[in-house]
Amino acid sequence: MSQAPNLSATRTDVTRQLATYASDLSYARLSDKARTVGKHALLDWLAVTLAGGQEPLVAILRDEAATEGLGSQATLLGLGARGSVGQAALINGAAGHALDYDDVHPSVGGHPTVPVAPVALALSERDSKSGTDLLTALIAGIETEARVGCLIGDARDNGWHQTSTVGVFGGAAAAASLLGLDAEKTIQAFGIAGTQAAGVMASFGTMCKPLHAGMAAESGLRAAEWAARGFTGASDILEHERGFAATHGLRFDAEAALAGMGETFFCEDILFKHHAACYGTHSAIECAQLIRKNPAFDLDKIEKVEIRVHTRITHMCDIPAPTDGLGIKFSLRMTMALALSGEPTSALHVYSEEHAARPDLVAIRDKVTSVVDDRYGYRGAGVTVHLSDGTAIHEDFDVAVPESDLTVQEAKLTEKFLSLAEPVIGDHHAQEVLGIVLNLETLAATADLTEHLSSAQAG
Amino acid sequence: MSQAPNLSATRTDVTRQLATYASDLSYARLSDKARTVGKHALLDWLAVTLAGGQEPLVAILRDEAATEGLGSQATLLGLGARGSVGQAALINGAAGHALDYDDVHPSVGGHPTVPVAPVALALSERDSKSGTDLLTALIAGIETEARVGCLIGDARDNGWHQTSTVGVFGGAAAAASLLGLDAEKTIQAFGIAGTQAAGVMASFGTMCKPLHAGMAAESGLRAAEWAARGFTGASDILEHERGFAATHGLRFDAEAALAGMGETFFCEDILFKHHAACYGTHSAIECAQLIRKNPAFDLDKIEKVEIRVHTRITHMCDIPAPTDGLGIKFSLRMTMALALSGEPTSALHVYSEEHAARPDLVAIRDKVTSVVDDRYGYRGAGVTVHLSDGTAIHEDFDVAVPESDLTVQEAKLTEKFLSLAEPVIGDHHAQEVLGIVLNLETLAATADLTEHLSSAQAG
Repeated sequence: MSQAPNLSATRTDVTRQLATYASDLSYARLSDKARTVGKHALLDWLAVTLAGGQEPLVAILRDEAATEGLGSQATLLGLGARGSVGQAALINGAAGHALDYDDVHPSVGGHPTVPVAPVALALSERDSKSGTDLLTALIAGIETEARVGCLIGDARDNGWHQTSTVGVFGGAAAAASLLGLDAEKTIQAFGIAGTQAAGVMASFGTMCKPLHAGMAAESGLRAAEWAARGFTGASDILEHERGFAATHGLRFDAEAALAGMGETFFCEDILFKHHAACYGTHSAIECAQLIRKNPAFDLDKIEKVEIRVHTRITHMCDIPAPTDGLGIKFSLRMTMALALSGEPTSALHVYSEEHAARPDLVAIRDKVTSVVDDRYGYRGAGVTVHLSDGTAIHEDFDVAVPESDLTVQEAKLTEKFLSLAEPVIGDHHAQEVLGIVLNLETLAATADLTEHLSSAQAG
Repeated sequence: MSQAPNLSATRTDVTRQLATYASDLSYARLSDKARTVGKHALLDWLAVTLAGGQEPLVAILRDEAATEGLGSQATLLGLGARGSVGQAALINGAAGHALDYDDVHPSVGGHPTVPVAPVALALSERDSKSGTDLLTALIAGIETEARVGCLIGDARDNGWHQTSTVGVFGGAAAAASLLGLDAEKTIQAFGIAGTQAAGVMASFGTMCKPLHAGMAAESGLRAAEWAARGFTGASDILEHERGFAATHGLRFDAEAALAGMGETFFCEDILFKHHAACYGTHSAIECAQLIRKNPAFDLDKIEKVEIRVHTRITHMCDIPAPTDGLGIKFSLRMTMALALSGEPTSALHVYSEEHAARPDLVAIRDKVTSVVDDRYGYRGAGVTVHLSDGTAIHEDFDVAVPESDLTVQEAKLTEKFLSLAEPVIGDHHAQEVLGIVLNLETLAATADLTEHLSSAQAG
């Protein structure tokens, strides 16, 4: 059970400093790289949210909201409906995490964009904000989350789902940014947000895991909305001895939380998932894609494939002979067969019973072995393909290292976006959204973006 | 910071057992005393909610909900408006705790009725349930909370506001009862509720403390509503090693949680606040009221008054010369002056600047001394009034002991209810509500109760 904390020795005004930073952040102060990666994060979130919105858990949330009464302030992505900003935050937030295909940030200890973007988009739409307003709010949220994450460490082993518990501060910061709250009101918003922080790891494997993202978004949004109206919360929520770090944290490192504020942008280091499978399979898939580009590679000559990964990965996703789509997602061998065969591992349809049973894929799958090699990091991999002519092609990859070439990243995310969005909103709207997001600085009013995000039926 | 728990040695199916119990509980199985005290709890909650609804924090929640779009399923007490069941749970829940004048239960480690009654009332109204349905749901909720409280102990020193964190299970159980969820769905509801559990002690002294009660009510209600539609959560939320007890608890005592289930009713031991002041002043006030009934007592002959209390009480509420209403609430001496003078300490208006300055009250106040005496329990007191004729009148009281005479309890709660409700809904509606609640078994449809709870304007 959790122990009574004593933060008195480490008391700081870290809540005030982080809230002031989030409140003051402006588009002009963002680095170029932060702006670009921020747009990538938004594009990626739109992709996974449109696709995730088709999952049954989202239908349940929408149906209950409809029974209670849907508001009309903001678009419910891909659902052909509108809701209040709170409903949009909850439902779009849960949709964004429904496929577990959204972005990752080590400093957050979870997924950075999904508790923030639904808030930023809904309020931007309601209040007719511009693309730069939207982007600034998104980044204010992500920077806040990452710094709160640095403050408390990664408390997942203590039972906390940090996408939600840390994420609520991101949602609050994004909303405070768009509502134009001053530092004092933003401090209150953080207090109201932090006392709503919830979400435990026991829920993994149930619909509550994606729900957590929606909860964090809704709670963060409400916190700022209520604070704007004069609602009060603890003004030292992070450092109070019975506050957020004490109840949800692993440590209290104010120095880490405040380092480089205004100069360093954590969002530059967001990691994107480019394959609709367990993150533990991604480095191996990336190796396979590099190997396919080698002129010596020949699919028909494969004799043996060796995947070297950290112990942790073999414990997570080494199902040898999966029989359905979910099984493929957790199979190093089958995802390797897909990748070497050139199947689009970013698309959802390849993770199916049909693909699990396809003879040509099964034949390659059975030539793959996984080898524990802890010289690779938690998320790295090395793959060697041995061909019948004696050639061996080897590649290493580590998805824990952010992509340095943003053009490459953009191309990959564009492919992912179109693959996920087109089935939901249609080709025309998907192309429109892509163009708007990649040129977000020129968007005058967010409604010109959201009008394309409603549903396939509207396409 | 919290430590990684290891519950593997204590794993049980306590979630399943508590959910099954809550799901199976019927009116026929309740003890007579549970039924009576349940009605008292409802009456008391209606009183503090109608009065608390006039506080600024409730207006903020209502205004934000109105901007987002009010539903029409349930009455917002004393606000002359309706909302969705979720909005009613949130807003009526926060209103019920706004004055910190609602009931208490040691096993919950907090306030038992306020996270449960808003859920029970809103769903009963929406679904045209009877008085016995409403009462059964209320008691199912309170029993669940008390047993979850027994399971995890009192974790307030670890930073948790248990009215909220434990309360969310009460809200879920009440909703599950009214929705007729079977045991399996109730287990899911508990999983969805428990992963939403939030609220830290750092928020005490801010509007977030009452908000916590509303959050718990809304989260509990949503959990059951979503579970009814097929949403899934952890089926072992209480005992999972990264679940509720691990993150929010002080211990894991499944035996305590399950003892006497179906035979013992925790709700029989609810403690009610009969004075609108800090709970630490209540035993002394009760002593004063007994002393006033002594034929030898004469207000004009008071020479000296001695209050004996536990150290903890003197640390909590011993402001010697308060100057405003909030100060009076935390002043043993001034509340004693009010009580000996026969002022209605259950009413809100006596806690005012005017009363703080009234010469006759100040004169008595200055004759009072408080003495630390740890022979009294945390909530007990002994009062001796010395008169100028040499008479000394002494009484002891302990508000931590539930009232054994339910007729006395009912009379006190009736006085409190009328005092708080009449200014909000008017005399006629207050009398109607009183009659209905005290004869709740005969209520055919909850709307016949809620029609009287809307507002003073409607009176």
